[in-house]
Amino acid sequence: MNAHISHYSMNSPYPSTLLENAVNEFAKLPGIGKKSALRLVLHLLRQDEVKVVNFAEAIVKLKQEVKYCKKCNNISDTDLCEICADGSRNKSLVCVVENIKEVMAIERTGQFKGLYHVLGGIISPIDGIGPSDIEIASLEERVKIGEIEELVLALSATMEGDTTNFYIFRKLQPHNVKVSIIARGVSIGDEIEYADEVTLGRSILNRTPFDESYKLASK
Amino acid sequence: MNAHISHYSMNSPYPSTLLENAVNEFAKLPGIGKKSALRLVLHLLRQDEVKVVNFAEAIVKLKQEVKYCKKCNNISDTDLCEICADGSRNKSLVCVVENIKEVMAIERTGQFKGLYHVLGGIISPIDGIGPSDIEIASLEERVKIGEIEELVLALSATMEGDTTNFYIFRKLQPHNVKVSIIARGVSIGDEIEYADEVTLGRSILNRTPFDESYKLASK
Repeated sequence: MNAHISHYSMNSPYPSTLLENAVNEFAKLPGIGKKSALRLVLHLLRQDEVKVVNFAEAIVKLKQEVKYCKKCNNISDTDLCEICADGSRNKSLVCVVENIKEVMAIERTGQFKGLYHVLGGIISPIDGIGPSDIEIASLEERVKIGEIEELVLALSATMEGDTTNFYIFRKLQPHNVKVSIIARGVSIGDEIEYADEVTLGRSILNRTPFDESYKLASK
Repeated sequence: MNAHISHYSMNSPYPSTLLENAVNEFAKLPGIGKKSALRLVLHLLRQDEVKVVNFAEAIVKLKQEVKYCKKCNNISDTDLCEICADGSRNKSLVCVVENIKEVMAIERTGQFKGLYHVLGGIISPIDGIGPSDIEIASLEERVKIGEIEELVLALSATMEGDTTNFYIFRKLQPHNVKVSIIARGVSIGDEIEYADEVTLGRSILNRTPFDESYKLASK
């Protein structure tokens, strides 16, 4: 019966639609709720305009100008990414990964000197992602050229990862390429008694000769 | 001695400077590290360009076009915010808060029908914030006009909040205005035995007559 119902409680908790729009945009990001979004927006509002514009421009520029390596499909500033363009790397060894985050993780180890193939996703019927939605055809093309001797599958150890591994293995069987998969086992530093059964079981099945393992560790 | 040192491990973990810039911009936000920033940027990269542009524009538009209510200093789309413009609210009662988040929290309670005064910060010598950096002079101006009968201080119960409360109280003493402070005590629903000592002590010192409290609860 009150003609002056507060805008706050009835329509929106925000005193400004500009503020509300900015909060809603931030809250669309994964893992960011309305409360965190408001905190981030109020933080940006306290910055100088040039900083806010820089923030916005960096994101739009990335989206508009990003390139994907024409060989391995990794994010790149150039047509051919730095890894594919690096003449010192082993072109006959290619590691198959889901996305750029795995490329970065494997590069950090310093243990891989081959090239990559970034699938850009993983086969997941539940999410409607089939083999043609990810970069499997381009992988087959690379294999057909005959430069690749070994593919190392480095996908997540999930149902979707297993499905994708198996699909790639079957698809490439006609071609003369060795397909291997990264080792699964108890993490270095982990206590055996606390390792999960599946992982511990796998590390027993995939045990390696001690002298090989010793040589790896002392490298 | 290798002329082909990987860009990844030596200079930057990112395969693209566009990507790196976007990640660095996100990582400047409070509570967002490099890993979360990369996750958010890769999420935006998977969206349509129009969505990414909308995200960026909402933030820049807020920064460029935001207004602050000329009376209470709250964020607003108009010169006078909706609360100050609402004729049904009690203009003689003004709640003093640090920022807009407290306005939103108090509005959600539905228990306050007065106006606000948003300080836009709190006195904090450690952060170099003095009384002249926040909206205390404009509060004094509002009080001088004589429309306000009571100020309710609703700042955080911290050293900075206490300092600011005391400063405002002393500054406004010459003017004929009642200054009160929100009640502190054991939260409704909390067990007495688990309440911290300071809070429990305060709720004993500030005890209220039972019939008053009963009237409030049954309102």
